[in-house]
Amino acid sequence: MQGAGAPAVGDNGAMTLGKGRFESFSDGVFAIAITLLILEIHLPPTVSRASGSSAQAKALLEIWPAYLVYVASFATIGIMWLNHHALFDAAQRITHGVIVANLVLLGLISFLPFTTEVLGRLGLTQATVVYYGLTMTAIAFAYLGVQIQVIAAHPGSAQKLTRWNIVGMTAYPLATVVGFFVPLLGVVLIALLAVFYALPRNVRVARFTPGPNVDAVR
Amino acid sequence: MQGAGAPAVGDNGAMTLGKGRFESFSDGVFAIAITLLILEIHLPPTVSRASGSSAQAKALLEIWPAYLVYVASFATIGIMWLNHHALFDAAQRITHGVIVANLVLLGLISFLPFTTEVLGRLGLTQATVVYYGLTMTAIAFAYLGVQIQVIAAHPGSAQKLTRWNIVGMTAYPLATVVGFFVPLLGVVLIALLAVFYALPRNVRVARFTPGPNVDAVR
Amino acid sequence: MQGAGAPAVGDNGAMTLGKGRFESFSDGVFAIAITLLILEIHLPPTVSRASGSSAQAKALLEIWPAYLVYVASFATIGIMWLNHHALFDAAQRITHGVIVANLVLLGLISFLPFTTEVLGRLGLTQATVVYYGLTMTAIAFAYLGVQIQVIAAHPGSAQKLTRWNIVGMTAYPLATVVGFFVPLLGVVLIALLAVFYALPRNVRVARFTPGPNVDAVR
Amino acid sequence: MQGAGAPAVGDNGAMTLGKGRFESFSDGVFAIAITLLILEIHLPPTVSRASGSSAQAKALLEIWPAYLVYVASFATIGIMWLNHHALFDAAQRITHGVIVANLVLLGLISFLPFTTEVLGRLGLTQATVVYYGLTMTAIAFAYLGVQIQVIAAHPGSAQKLTRWNIVGMTAYPLATVVGFFVPLLGVVLIALLAVFYALPRNVRVARFTPGPNVDAVR
Repeated sequence: MQGAGAPAVGDNGAMTLGKGRFESFSDGVFAIAITLLILEIHLPPTVSRASGSSAQAKALLEIWPAYLVYVASFATIGIMWLNHHALFDAAQRITHGVIVANLVLLGLISFLPFTTEVLGRLGLTQATVVYYGLTMTAIAFAYLGVQIQVIAAHPGSAQKLTRWNIVGMTAYPLATVVGFFVPLLGVVLIALLAVFYALPRNVRVARFTPGPNVDAVR
Repeated sequence: MQGAGAPAVGDNGAMTLGKGRFESFSDGVFAIAITLLILEIHLPPTVSRASGSSAQAKALLEIWPAYLVYVASFATIGIMWLNHHALFDAAQRITHGVIVANLVLLGLISFLPFTTEVLGRLGLTQATVVYYGLTMTAIAFAYLGVQIQVIAAHPGSAQKLTRWNIVGMTAYPLATVVGFFVPLLGVVLIALLAVFYALPRNVRVARFTPGPNVDAVR
Repeated sequence: MQGAGAPAVGDNGAMTLGKGRFESFSDGVFAIAITLLILEIHLPPTVSRASGSSAQAKALLEIWPAYLVYVASFATIGIMWLNHHALFDAAQRITHGVIVANLVLLGLISFLPFTTEVLGRLGLTQATVVYYGLTMTAIAFAYLGVQIQVIAAHPGSAQKLTRWNIVGMTAYPLATVVGFFVPLLGVVLIALLAVFYALPRNVRVARFTPGPNVDAVR
Repeated sequence: MQGAGAPAVGDNGAMTLGKGRFESFSDGVFAIAITLLILEIHLPPTVSRASGSSAQAKALLEIWPAYLVYVASFATIGIMWLNHHALFDAAQRITHGVIVANLVLLGLISFLPFTTEVLGRLGLTQATVVYYGLTMTAIAFAYLGVQIQVIAAHPGSAQKLTRWNIVGMTAYPLATVVGFFVPLLGVVLIALLAVFYALPRNVRVARFTPGPNVDAVR
């Protein structure tokens, strides 16, 4: 495979992992993680079949922080999936570096259901909201890592950070700090960030533009 | 991208999200949500390994409301998936509005396992059945939102509300009201609605007919 | 759609549900149900972090019935998926009847994780093994229903029941009766049935042969 | 099908299971198993909403062994998926033997979330780490079984064991023995093995090279 005249494909750590199977595996993890979020929302153990209808209704309303966190996490994963799609839409080389960086990102996305459970079960406290904010911050940086690997795999392409990253890498740490002092506000900020990313223009700038000298792999 | 003469694709909030990947992500969430329903059905905590076979048999029969809710929720998600498929079968443009409306719909579909657990654990009471009915009502309106976005993305297409929506937007609130007074009847109505939608003609009218002046995207 | 000269597609309850999306939704449910089985296997609540290593090792060995049921259920779903694939490999028309029968089958396949939990938590008793056997019997008959619908959608095709069904529709009720008297033997029989179906010849005869006068849909 | 002159396809236990559907089912199980890992990570039951933020923070830090096991299991499944992909990338015949060996592998991969829960709930003890190591050893041998079946299906192909297997079949038993004496070290070794496999060269040698005389099936 290292012989002179052999095609460059496979050299320099580039694997011939089909882009289709790479994307469908990633899509699967995104779709599963987003759907698993709900499994981590629980009724308080104090309410039961014997509680009577009005106590049950009260319990269903009192877990509103869990609903808020569900919306924030669901929206974040959904938006991440959109950006992930936009990024790889134009990518043509799935190198080994891309695969490893992507596994780190997927590992953090898959971690979100647990973080969501922590907030639902322990309430919106200083500890839990900071924990949530740190997870979001880690996701923003992991996504940056994927972007860097994609750009490295396409020399000569338009190398610009997307708005998602520039905002995310400052906003999530900020929301974490805010959450340290006012937990509820921290979660609301994280939810608003997902709404912000859902605006048309912000998704669009996440697009990655490969340069002209990229060899098509598959 | 805003230059004169440039292709309209990408303008006006239209993203070039591939329809294939959009559908496969949606299919994934539908398939996962429908399969997760069972995880929220539990044995009563009072029955155990030491209970003896006849007490166990009794417990397995006594959770029949959970079975009923499982059937109703499973059928509803299955029918929603069928309608979703019929709707996007003819759609050719996946705009940003479609994506956001679809995420809202998927977020509510993914929420159903929790609602199913609420009914299973707390029984068929006024509070839980109304909660279930409101979730179903929200799903009906979210589906209307997706339809409106799909129609907006295809100007000149046949813009008619499908029978699914007209029935759903009146029947689910009605079933909710009925459930307030007679909980069991409310759940039975919701199950019957799924059966009604499963009739051939009702699925067929959910079809969406794009007009002649729609540009093919991908 | 009922006009003379119009293509037959869409008439007689035949929907134009793409076979690809139908198969990928079914595959998704099979893959998820088979993977969820493990979530229903639990350690006994009596063992904990404080138990000491040898008590923990004992607890991990004592849940062997859960392992046996895991193997039996995993193998059954895996084989069902293989047969499902072989059946639809040759099918060309996905009618409304096929879709509804398939949803019933998927609903029962998705139910298996709960049955598995029942056996794991309550042990191999008369009640739980009969419950397991009845679920398997229902799956065998639901699969027959799908086969009947597929054959009905392809008039003129080779209409023979497969060995899977003939064996399954007698063997599962038999295993249920055996399980009523000797629970462990009932589960072993169900596990052996999956092994039997895994033999090359048995999968191969599950193939469905359409006749020459079937119109290709898509 | 056994007639003289008939195509070899379908004989000798070779099924015509489409490679595409085989791969997508396997991908689904990998993606689901990797995402389900998080569901088995739990907060200690002693911490609650009433614990106060600093006790909560302490509890979130104290479950670090669960994080370590999550990373090790996630990386292992991810790398297994990569190797699985590389193996089947070049394979052209999905025989019955391949399917059965693959189901055994998937059944063990799906088992990992339970093993991960055992470690998370019972801590890193002699019993739990040996249990974990034995599961990993079984996965290494099951993967060898799949490789043997793939090679058997392609007579004349380059029949070499990959480095994954040679290392895995000695390293996982070794890590199990080490874990018997120093539990933490056993888990760290298993995590390091995943990192080792993630190095570019080790993934690349897992490639399987079919010989020239292999008939293309589909």
